This record gives sequence, structure tokens and C-alpha cells, in this order.
Amino acid sequence: MNDIDPTGAVAGWWATAVSRMEPGVIELRGHPVQELIGTTSLTSMIWLMLRGELPGAREAALLEAALVAGVDHGPQAPSIAIARMAATCGVGLNSAVASAVNTLGDSHGGAGEQCVELLTEILQAEATGIGLETAVRQVIAARPRYLPGFGHRFHPVDPRRDPLLSLVDSAVADGVVPGDHLRAGRAVEDILNRGRAEPVPMNIDGATAIIYAELGFPAPLARGLFVLSRSIGILAHAWEETEQGRRNKGPIPRSILPAHLP
Amino acid sequence: MNDIDPTGAVAGWWATAVSRMEPGVIELRGHPVQELIGTTSLTSMIWLMLRGELPGAREAALLEAALVAGVDHGPQAPSIAIARMAATCGVGLNSAVASAVNTLGDSHGGAGEQCVELLTEILQAEATGIGLETAVRQVIAARPRYLPGFGHRFHPVDPRRDPLLSLVDSAVADGVVPGDHLRAGRAVEDILNRGRAEPVPMNIDGATAIIYAELGFPAPLARGLFVLSRSIGILAHAWEETEQGRRNKGPIPRSILPAHLP
Amino acid sequence: MNDIDPTGAVAGWWATAVSRMEPGVIELRGHPVQELIGTTSLTSMIWLMLRGELPGAREAALLEAALVAGVDHGPQAPSIAIARMAATCGVGLNSAVASAVNTLGDSHGGAGEQCVELLTEILQAEATGIGLETAVRQVIAARPRYLPGFGHRFHPVDPRRDPLLSLVDSAVADGVVPGDHLRAGRAVEDILNRGRAEPVPMNIDGATAIIYAELGFPAPLARGLFVLSRSIGILAHAWEETEQGRRNKGPIPRSILPAHLP
Amino acid sequence: MNDIDPTGAVAGWWATAVSRMEPGVIELRGHPVQELIGTTSLTSMIWLMLRGELPGAREAALLEAALVAGVDHGPQAPSIAIARMAATCGVGLNSAVASAVNTLGDSHGGAGEQCVELLTEILQAEATGIGLETAVRQVIAARPRYLPGFGHRFHPVDPRRDPLLSLVDSAVADGVVPGDHLRAGRAVEDILNRGRAEPVPMNIDGATAIIYAELGFPAPLARGLFVLSRSIGILAHAWEETEQGRRNKGPIPRSILPAHLP
Repeated sequence: MNDIDPTGAVAGWWATAVSRMEPGVIELRGHPVQELIGTTSLTSMIWLMLRGELPGAREAALLEAALVAGVDHGPQAPSIAIARMAATCGVGLNSAVASAVNTLGDSHGGAGEQCVELLTEILQAEATGIGLETAVRQVIAARPRYLPGFGHRFHPVDPRRDPLLSLVDSAVADGVVPGDHLRAGRAVEDILNRGRAEPVPMNIDGATAIIYAELGFPAPLARGLFVLSRSIGILAHAWEETEQGRRNKGPIPRSILPAHLP
Repeated sequence: MNDIDPTGAVAGWWATAVSRMEPGVIELRGHPVQELIGTTSLTSMIWLMLRGELPGAREAALLEAALVAGVDHGPQAPSIAIARMAATCGVGLNSAVASAVNTLGDSHGGAGEQCVELLTEILQAEATGIGLETAVRQVIAARPRYLPGFGHRFHPVDPRRDPLLSLVDSAVADGVVPGDHLRAGRAVEDILNRGRAEPVPMNIDGATAIIYAELGFPAPLARGLFVLSRSIGILAHAWEETEQGRRNKGPIPRSILPAHLP
Repeated sequence: MNDIDPTGAVAGWWATAVSRMEPGVIELRGHPVQELIGTTSLTSMIWLMLRGELPGAREAALLEAALVAGVDHGPQAPSIAIARMAATCGVGLNSAVASAVNTLGDSHGGAGEQCVELLTEILQAEATGIGLETAVRQVIAARPRYLPGFGHRFHPVDPRRDPLLSLVDSAVADGVVPGDHLRAGRAVEDILNRGRAEPVPMNIDGATAIIYAELGFPAPLARGLFVLSRSIGILAHAWEETEQGRRNKGPIPRSILPAHLP
Repeated sequence: MNDIDPTGAVAGWWATAVSRMEPGVIELRGHPVQELIGTTSLTSMIWLMLRGELPGAREAALLEAALVAGVDHGPQAPSIAIARMAATCGVGLNSAVASAVNTLGDSHGGAGEQCVELLTEILQAEATGIGLETAVRQVIAARPRYLPGFGHRFHPVDPRRDPLLSLVDSAVADGVVPGDHLRAGRAVEDILNRGRAEPVPMNIDGATAIIYAELGFPAPLARGLFVLSRSIGILAHAWEETEQGRRNKGPIPRSILPAHLP
């Protein structure tokens, strides 16, 4: 409030509980930044900024495992290909990352968010007393075309599934997280695969959705956290492409093109 | 100015000469929007919004030709490939267009801007009295690796060059534009190709740069105008891909991948 | 097909009906680009690229009016404010435009798309024989919170409504467009406002949705076309801000900040 | 190589040393992903993905401190304001983050990159034998208008400077990093402030630039790493705004607007 903003309406429009600035002062969620530097891990900072308080060590470890698991899946993922092509177009790394992160939409980076919703729906149905199996079958039946978090068009078994679930198992055993979303996720996988020749295993989106949900993150942050995780791979690919020095990289090598495409 | 903004500092921070709004009133560069609707072409609107006044008919026609010429160059252009891949990722057309437009950077969409600067530099050097040929040679020599607006890795002759230059010729003949940048551009092309077996013709960036510069647009708007033009092709490709219904399109068909890439 | 792509699978992955390139050849929807330059308006190019054929003169005029109407609504629109702030951050105009266009999402630029869906739903309900008024009431009742295309928090009457609808009236009278979506839109407005003290008039999204739908554009292209239209205002604002030379423009003037925000 | 890609040209076009995929296999920089999950910190993953090998514990700690320090600087930073406004426009968190990250350009997120270049230039000049002070004065003189990494329009002393430099001091003392860029940075600060009434202290960009350079990251990655760091604050602000449920947030509260802006 001052002469220019006597009612405080303008400052209020931009009020935030995330950070507070004064000349010489930076507080992030109430913590002076100088107390965070050198004492707090990057993963704990992510938790702090999104949730308002610092995580316990076991919670931070579980979050970190999920973030590490999602870092990259190679240049056939549209986001990675886009980052690499953008990096050859004469824009900064910030813009190459932005064009790529932007495509982590409902079909590409949204499965984690949708899987949190799916598992939560199952638990809510179970809470009405119909039993877990019925709850799962009911919720699956409502999604006949596509079940977010299960199946992979490339990996018969996703190598990230087992280590992630095993960390959740330990966290449940030690009372770090409740274990309900894990139970729901395993039930979906079990019921989905009964009597099936070709298995439809839980994928990375399913395993990380379980972790994010067990840790209490709301569904949209499953996508938000994946954005932070995949940004690392996106940057690494954009940088590798930058160092190679190509200009205006198209999707197909030029040797193929003369008769077809410019 | 009111109780909440008594000094007008806040409204002043966002003051603009582009448009003015009041309840029931929309003025664009001083023109009530209802007087523009149905009377003004889209190209004239572009001119009006960027320059503050409506163009003459011949000026608008020249601008329109340049905008039409740059609309698309097929999916091997990174921006177009990015638009198509983004459209399969579960984001809106607005975001597919944004990821693509974002990559019209210094190497991909910036050649027009750089060519305006090049031609202007030549004219400034010429104005010192050294003659056009010396001016051209001097400015070319300072750019040994890459001359924006000239040469094409795909087209021996860019089919857009001749119709664009011929429109500028008429406009010069009729006194619509001065013709200096055209003269400079032709001199570059001429000097560049003397005694050369494989010609390095003026390309679309060169021809449109001449038009934009002749019409008095500053260099950065050569890129800005190209953004508007290419957005049309970007949208058309994003839409075609949307209609085909693929999910998460990577750069290479999946049939190639099993042994190599996911 | 060549040694490197013997089955044509790779070229096929990027096949498109939008444009065709060969050395020296650029065809846009089957038209050699040199035949389009100087003969075709920018609006007709938009139609051609999205639909595959050139529009009639009256169709093009109607589309042009809608595109002109949506160009700008001032810096309080988030997209425009974003463009202006982005332009002060040391990125090219392409990236300033991209950050802005990206936010023309479901709440900011999506109302046109949603309004086309609304009107189409009404016409489909009417086609079952229940009468237009019942169809409207039924479809309105299913959207109790928000009716896309109607009402404006700023304009009591949107100055763009009347000139746009009057152009559609003429087009219907002359048999250029069928008039069904216009009829549905007017019925919504009428029923919505019966006995209401404060009117909820049709807004720009409603009026342009009617035009796009009457011209046969599918709903998602209502958003796509708005992206092209608003890009013009976005560029104009980014450019005005660029010329003013501020660095890192925040949302609030610095004079307010010392005690509150950096 | 297979029937469809007999020469391997297509797979080669997308070859990468960052990650390798086979059905059931994901290797990141040669490490099977399952060996990284649960054992590797997020900061070490960033190092691994960008550099190709895992960092030592002290190196990782220094990198982590720099990443933590840059996380947020409140909503007056254009990137944060953009993230918050974008989050109200009906796009996913991925797109809100993208619009914001995109603006970490030369003026907003590029000072770290420019400061690495500045310090490296000083060290190269010093290496010619002219002495550090002369080297600093020479390099400063070439940048009369703006010295990246020094001065802050808001903080008289940046609270992030001291803890970061103190961590670098320890790392130099223990032989973890060489200390040359630290020496150059301190010399700039010292010479810049001699006999000056109002001090121009090193800011966050300067302090993190020293860390990134001491750790051997090339200049463009100073910007890339800042992108990863600031993405955390960007996401936190986008999420806070999402939870508040506003639609189409403009830069100024609506209470100010009726007489001025929509």
C-alpha cells in the first residue's frame, strides 16, 4: 500500500503464498533463501514450492525416484524430437525446451494425471462398499478404449515399473505412505491381465502416478511433476543437437528427400 | 484514474496506441471496430495494426503477395513437422501452432529480417559514395559463411522469386515504392552469381525482404510478418494431422523402430 | 522411393495433401505457388490451405469479416499482456507471439469452438422434431454455469456483434450460407434474455462461431481461425512494446513495488 | 537397419548418445534406468544427462545449491506472471510452464550465460599476461551499458550471493573446482565498486554463473540449467493460480478497469 496503490488492490491481484520479496529479502514458502541454499535438495525444493512445507527424507526419496524415472525416453517421443529440431532453428535453449514441454499434453504427458484420477475413482467406488474387484471392473468398463498408466506399445515390460513399485512397497511397509493407490494400481494390473496371452503391464505413467498419489499430490500435479522430470531429458537432447551444429533439422535425412520432400 | 489507481500509474503501465476499449467501444488504431468489419481486408488490418494507418490499395496488394508466398514449405521444415507432431499430443490447435511458431528463429524464420538488414547496410554504404558494386562486395565480404536471402538447398530456382520481383517492378514503375532495396537485392544476386557454375539465386526470404523493406517495415517485422504468413501453413498441417487421429507421432514410422528406437 | 527409403514408408509417414515440393516446384493444395501470388487474397489462402479448395468471393468476404473482428481486445487480455511482457525478455518476435498464442486455450480462445459445438447440438436436437425452442432450452440447461458465445464481463453490447450478424443475414438472404447456425444462435440469445433485466448479448465468440459454422468449418477450426486472427493483434502489441525498449516488463509498474514485490 | 531402413540413414538421423531404447531396455547415458532409480539424485541425473557421466558428491552439491538458488523470484518476474496468467486460460500445466519458460531469453534468463562468457573472456585476456586487473578493466570497458551478473534493480545486496560464493570458496579450498572463474568474478565486483557510493554487487546470475563455469559447464548451459531451476517456481505459481480458479487473469485487477481497460 502506498500512494500509487492506496487500497492495495494492485498488489493484492498478484499476492502469493509461494514467495515473498523485499529489498535484500527472498523468502520461499516462508524460508529465507539463504537457509535453503546448501541445505536443501532440488527434490525437496520441488516439494516445498508445490506443497508449502519441506518433505520428510523418505517422502523426498520416493518423489526423487519417480522424477528420475521419467527423465527421458529417446527421440522418438514427440517432445524430444521437437526439442532437437527446435534447437537447430536459431532459438535459445529456453525456447527449444518450451516448444517441447508444451507438447506434454493429454496424450503425451497426461497419462499420469489421468491414472491418478482412475485410481482415485476406484478407491472412491471401493469406499461405497462394493469391494475392490468390482470397483476396478466398473471403472475399467467406463474406459473401453484406453486405460491410462497400463500397456506400452514398445516395452513388453517397462524396466521402470519394478524398481518404482518396490520402493513404494518399502514406503508402505514403513508407514511412509498409506498404500491405497498402490493396492488399486496392482488390482487393475491383475484384473486386466487375467487370462490374457499378451500381458498389458503397468507402465511408467502408472507407476509414477501411484507414487505421486501416495505422496498426496493432486492429479494435475502428476502432469506438472512429469514436466519437471522430462525437462531434463528435453534439455539434454536439445543441447546434444546444438553441439552438432545442424541448421533447420527436418524429421527425415535429406538424402531421402530429393524426389519427395524439401 | 480512480480511487484504486489515483495517479494513473497502473493504467499507464499498460497504455497502448494499438487499441482502446471502453464498455461498448473497441477502437483499433483509432478506428471503431464496427467500421473495419466488412470493409477492410485482413492484409490491410495487419498493416493498420503494425503501422497505425491503413495502406493504399497497391501497398496492400504488395504486402499480400509476400504474405501469400510464405504460407508453407512442407513438413520437412522443422516448424511444420513440429506442428504436426504437437497436434498428436493432446493439446489444442493453439498450442500446436505455438510450439511451431516458436521455432521461426534466427535460422528458420529469421533470414528475412537479416536480409532486410543486409540490404539496408548496402544502401547505407552506397550512400557514402562508394558505388553500389563496391558497397555490395564490402557487405558480402563481411558475411563469408552465409548470405541471408540467397541460395536454397532444395530449389535450383525458387518458384516464388519471379512473381514477387515482378510485382515489385510494377510497384516501382508506378511510384508505389522507391525501389532502392530491390536495386540492392538484384545487385547482390548479380554479383554473387558472376562466373559461378551453380547459381545461388535469391530465395523467398530475399524476395519478401525486398517487399517488406520497400514498404517501409523495419527489419524485425520481416520476421513478424513471416510469422503471420507461416502460421497459416502451420495451422493447416496441424489440422490435417488432427483429422488423421494419430497419437504421439514421432519423427519416424514405427515400422522402422523395433530394433532401434521406441 | 529410393535406395534409402525403398518401401516409401518414411516418406509416407510425412505424406500430406496440403503441399507438394519438388526441386523448383511448390504446390499448395494442388495450385502452383506462382499462380497464387498476386492473385489470391490472404483470407482465400487461409480457406484454401484448410479446406483444399478456393472459396467463392462471398464466402471469403464473410470469413474475412470474422477474422478482422477478432484481431485485438487490448492488453488486459492475458494473451496480449503475455506478448508484451515476452517481447521485453530478449526473445524474437516469433517467440513472443508463441508464448501468447499458446494461451488461447479453452477459457481464453476456446469459446468459439465451444459455441460451434453448442449450436450444432441445438440443430441436432431440433432435427429430432422437438422444435427449436425446446432444443435450445434443453441444451442450455445442460450448461448451467457458462454459455460459450454469450455475455461479456466488459461490454454491455459487444460492438462487433451487429456488423457481423448483419453480414450473415445478407449471406443467408443471397443463398451464400444456409442460415441454420444463425437461426440457432439468435434463438439462444432470445430465450436467454426473455424477462432478464441485465441482458446477456451474443459476444464476439458467438458471432464468429456462427460465421465459421455457416461456412462449414468444423468446431476446432473456430479456435484455429481465432488463433490466426488474434496473432495479428498479438504481433502488433509485441512490436509496440519492443519499440519502447523496456527490459523484463512485469505486470505492475515498479513505482508500486518497493514495499511489496520486486 | 532393416528392410525399411536398409542403409540405416533414417535411424542415423536420430542417433543420440543420450539414451538408448530396446524393447524392455532403457539406458540413459549407458546406465540402465533401473540402476538409477532409487540410487541417483535428481541433480546428479541432470549432470549425467548433460555431461555423460555421474558427478562426484561435492560437484553435485555445488550444482544443487545453484539450482536451488534460482527457483523463484516472485510474480513481478515476467516469466512467473506469464505462468500465472497462462494457467487461467484453459491450458494444461505443461503449456502454462512452456509459455513462461519460453521467455527466459537474453534479457530475462540469459544473464548467467552472458556472465560465463564475460568471466571466460577475462581469464583468456589474463592468460595473455596482462594481469587480472587490466583484463577486467578491458572486458568491462567493452560492455559500457550493461554488465551481466552484476547489479540488481531491487536488492541492494542479493541474499543469494553470500551463501553461494561461500560454497564455492570451500570447493576451491578442497580442490573440487579450480577457482579461476570465482577469482575473475570477485575481481569484477571489486573493481566495479571501488570509490562507488551505491554498490553494484554480484547478483544471482553472477554467482550461479561462477558455479556453472567452475563445474565446467559451457556458457549456453548456464541458461539451460536456469531453465530447469526456474521451471520449479514457474510450476508452483501456475499451480497456485490454478487452485484459485480465476479465468483469464489480466495483468491488472478488474476493479481498476471500467474506465480504462477491459
